[in-house]
Amino acid sequence: MGLSFEISATAAGGGRRAALHLPHGTVQTPVFMPVGTAATVKTVQQETLEQIGSDAAGAQIILANTYHLYLRPGHQLIRRMGGVHRFMSWPRPMLTDSGGFQVFSLSELRKVTDDGVEFRSHLDGSKHFFSPEHSIDVQIALGADILMAFDECVETPATWERTRQSMDLTHAWAARSKAHFEAHSHEVPWASDFPGRTQSLFGIVQGGMYADLRRESAERLVEMDFPGYAIGGLAVGEPRDVTREMIARTLEVLPSDKPRYVMGVGYPDEIEEYARMGVDMMDCVLPTRAARHGLLFRSAEPGEEGCSSPGEHASATAVRMNIKRLEYAEDQRPIDPACSCLVCRRYTRAYLRHLFVVKEPLGATLNSIHNLSFYLDTMSRVRGSLVDAVALAVDPQSDCNRNAV
Amino acid sequence: MGLSFEISATAAGGGRRAALHLPHGTVQTPVFMPVGTAATVKTVQQETLEQIGSDAAGAQIILANTYHLYLRPGHQLIRRMGGVHRFMSWPRPMLTDSGGFQVFSLSELRKVTDDGVEFRSHLDGSKHFFSPEHSIDVQIALGADILMAFDECVETPATWERTRQSMDLTHAWAARSKAHFEAHSHEVPWASDFPGRTQSLFGIVQGGMYADLRRESAERLVEMDFPGYAIGGLAVGEPRDVTREMIARTLEVLPSDKPRYVMGVGYPDEIEEYARMGVDMMDCVLPTRAARHGLLFRSAEPGEEGCSSPGEHASATAVRMNIKRLEYAEDQRPIDPACSCLVCRRYTRAYLRHLFVVKEPLGATLNSIHNLSFYLDTMSRVRGSLVDAVALAVDPQSDCNRNAV
Repeated sequence: MGLSFEISATAAGGGRRAALHLPHGTVQTPVFMPVGTAATVKTVQQETLEQIGSDAAGAQIILANTYHLYLRPGHQLIRRMGGVHRFMSWPRPMLTDSGGFQVFSLSELRKVTDDGVEFRSHLDGSKHFFSPEHSIDVQIALGADILMAFDECVETPATWERTRQSMDLTHAWAARSKAHFEAHSHEVPWASDFPGRTQSLFGIVQGGMYADLRRESAERLVEMDFPGYAIGGLAVGEPRDVTREMIARTLEVLPSDKPRYVMGVGYPDEIEEYARMGVDMMDCVLPTRAARHGLLFRSAEPGEEGCSSPGEHASATAVRMNIKRLEYAEDQRPIDPACSCLVCRRYTRAYLRHLFVVKEPLGATLNSIHNLSFYLDTMSRVRGSLVDAVALAVDPQSDCNRNAV
Repeated sequence: MGLSFEISATAAGGGRRAALHLPHGTVQTPVFMPVGTAATVKTVQQETLEQIGSDAAGAQIILANTYHLYLRPGHQLIRRMGGVHRFMSWPRPMLTDSGGFQVFSLSELRKVTDDGVEFRSHLDGSKHFFSPEHSIDVQIALGADILMAFDECVETPATWERTRQSMDLTHAWAARSKAHFEAHSHEVPWASDFPGRTQSLFGIVQGGMYADLRRESAERLVEMDFPGYAIGGLAVGEPRDVTREMIARTLEVLPSDKPRYVMGVGYPDEIEEYARMGVDMMDCVLPTRAARHGLLFRSAEPGEEGCSSPGEHASATAVRMNIKRLEYAEDQRPIDPACSCLVCRRYTRAYLRHLFVVKEPLGATLNSIHNLSFYLDTMSRVRGSLVDAVALAVDPQSDCNRNAV
């Protein structure tokens, strides 16, 4: 068995509270997954990652990138080390992407055929070939709890015809990914540590910015029957309302009893909004990448305007602050007075600004810890409010029942 | 009161076990002090620094560099933030150097007069002037528990005459540093937090590589009566036996009831050797700088040859390993199987090599934590053996007494 997904509450807007049981542990959803590109969430120690967030509960699940680990240190080396969990000493759940997105965004001289993609490494120009079967082989060697079907990421913008053609290729590759995974899933390096458990392969919905193609893609993938579904190819430069629309149209088609994952999003208010729409999993490099550039997220103070967009649900607003600004030079407050992450409990804005200005590596580390904590706290708050919303909706009924007794 | 120094044991070789009581806490000596140049021990979080070492007791005292903090963010800013302890959130003891070493090694266009040194910043070429009085003012604003007299660091090699002249200037500056400190010690930013406590100003012995000048310098400084004495201007490229000889000749003159600090040393076997000779405090950028270059220290395995030099005292040998070597690519052992620091408890050589090869910042962090732990463990072992050596020397006497009863 790969995973089980237990939904405990569903709110009127579609958002749901669930537990995703994976071989390496249980993930409370909706969840944000920090990105650990090269088997490290940049600048953050694993022992710290296990403690981030105001509740000090840490990240529940993290990502690693197949493309990067395939090139260095190589998936066969990681297999020999027992898989990526043991290699990086991360005992909790993990997810790997298929390598597709990086092949299409980072590598050079790509040549796409029905069979797969030939490309040159962005590191040394060496020639490589990824087919759906090869991506799955690499991801089985890495041994994350969840792996992804190999997909083509169409360029943006693309015509309806081009998008349709690319989507069809993605569907063919999804079927081949699934067939290959089912034939080889027993080869995962931790097979003997978790008898009877396997990885879980998610399909990826494509279809660009066309609602009809998104729906069609979701329908085709659902026919193939994956244990979970991702929505890919979004947040690639399109307006936010287009992203929201594509997600909404896709969620209508995806089965409500399986986990639904939007890849590569987003700002704090976005992940909150999508979670309230019924998205269970999200990942993004934004909190860590922004941190390295001195961009921090904090909650708005009373009366302060945040960067949230108005929506159906009132969401707590997130304010962006650029720590290098002179106004923070002698500011003795923590980044976010409402945050109790280890950075906000200990360090001042003045100190973080100093570290950033003098280019001390500790600055990127502390900024990353806070931003990741802010993202995890956002999801924690959404999970709590989803349960509360359902309780509110149920309570009158309960009273009614009690009255009847 | 600045400090008190309680010696509990002295071994035959001169090494002593003591407790150095400072306003921000008590330091068990002999001690190695990690260097936190710009108010951060590079790449290491303060919460981690409080836990490094196999006993997880953390660093007892760290350094910060006056020259760097004077330039950025500026000592007056740090004063307004409550001093360097509060600024960087480090509640334990700290020490600042005088800025002299960096002025003479980093800055440009120095012009030395009896009054002080005019120099240009290595960052932006801006013009600055450091006199003994100004160095002390800056160090009082920073507010470390221990501050250092402003000294001239003579170039190496230097003639006896040139070294003598420079030493005389250092003595004149030491007297001016002391007079200025005594007049202004009440201005330390934490004065009201520790009523009746002040910083402690150490004098610095110079004299280059000339034993007679070293002795003379020590005698002049002892006449001035400092609460502690540093030996400066060593480990600047001279052969190791010269370093040892200069330290030995100086220790003969320095009072045995006051703390003695050798600045800027050294390799693990060096700090052990000097501690056994009677040096109480040492600092060096080596463990953290080497870590960032992938050079790690570990204890020798049985039968393995270390890099220790033969000496009067058998010292545990330290082996240097370069983590980038291919031989570690699939090595699942910790850096040092005999080490129980947080890095050796959790991470493999294979993972650390990967991080170094792909230039992930976490590599420098984990390497630094291990190397610092190795240094602290070395001193912890020396402290234990100093107590044991004294106990061994005393025991026969005790038996004799018992027999007489």
